[in-house]
Amino acid sequence: MISIRVMQLGEGVEWALHCCSLLAVLPDDRALPASSLAEFHGVPGAYLAKHLQALSQAGILEAVPGRRGGYGLGRPADEITLLEVVEAIEGDAGAFRCTEIRRRGPTASPAGVYSHTCAIAVAMSRADVAWRAELSRQTISTLLAELGASISPVVVGKTAAWIQEAAR
Amino acid sequence: MISIRVMQLGEGVEWALHCCSLLAVLPDDRALPASSLAEFHGVPGAYLAKHLQALSQAGILEAVPGRRGGYGLGRPADEITLLEVVEAIEGDAGAFRCTEIRRRGPTASPAGVYSHTCAIAVAMSRADVAWRAELSRQTISTLLAELGASISPVVVGKTAAWIQEAAR
Repeated sequence: MISIRVMQLGEGVEWALHCCSLLAVLPDDRALPASSLAEFHGVPGAYLAKHLQALSQAGILEAVPGRRGGYGLGRPADEITLLEVVEAIEGDAGAFRCTEIRRRGPTASPAGVYSHTCAIAVAMSRADVAWRAELSRQTISTLLAELGASISPVVVGKTAAWIQEAAR
Repeated sequence: MISIRVMQLGEGVEWALHCCSLLAVLPDDRALPASSLAEFHGVPGAYLAKHLQALSQAGILEAVPGRRGGYGLGRPADEITLLEVVEAIEGDAGAFRCTEIRRRGPTASPAGVYSHTCAIAVAMSRADVAWRAELSRQTISTLLAELGASISPVVVGKTAAWIQEAAR
């Protein structure tokens, strides 16, 4: 039985984009602790904490230390692309990994024969470039505008009330 | 310890694209058995066989039955896009899976409130569309042209000699 892996992003990307969107609507100079971000999104705190640290290391979030500390955006929402968020969580490796099978089998030849990158890897990398280009065209700011146009006023009201209580 | 999955295609995609490229340069009315395709690429026969079956089910390859049977392309190389090959192996699910975390936590609301697709899923799906569009612009035929321009004459010669022996 063969196991076919399906190309898939980890759930951390979904969590990270939701967290960035929520932090983008915090009042100025307010922060949310990791535990509140986990509570709001109903996700495991320990797992989310790792992703928040990765976002912080990438400069996407800013960790405010101390008793009233927590996370805020590390820079304006229109200066954070979706690609930056995705790469902070998933890294920047392309979806296609060339394992150089062209060097195996009956045509195997000395290394110098393979000086050009395999054309199959080149062809697949074009799709990665297109994927990343589309993500880099979008920012947390453009995402917020679309969230604002699609979220029910009921949820907006509940979110605002929750932020009032939870933000430090 | 969190396990961060990296978005990655399975090795079956690499194998499939190499197999299609090789089958595209077979003389007319010749075929290669699965075992020869595995030998040429130095990959496990049983694993490769599953992928070849998937390509065959998608109409990308044609399985010729009988003692002199094997695989050939199911249609002309310029009518097989890289996207079709990738989707035959990996399926057509997008890289981003929305798990609807927006419905959890303190803002959880009745289902009717979430009639719009989450804007985060919409934003991520744009990147998938771009990825698939780029793969659908490329065919086994365009790939062959690039392989031809990048493969060493040494390997071309060894491949031609091997095909003479192996093709049925």
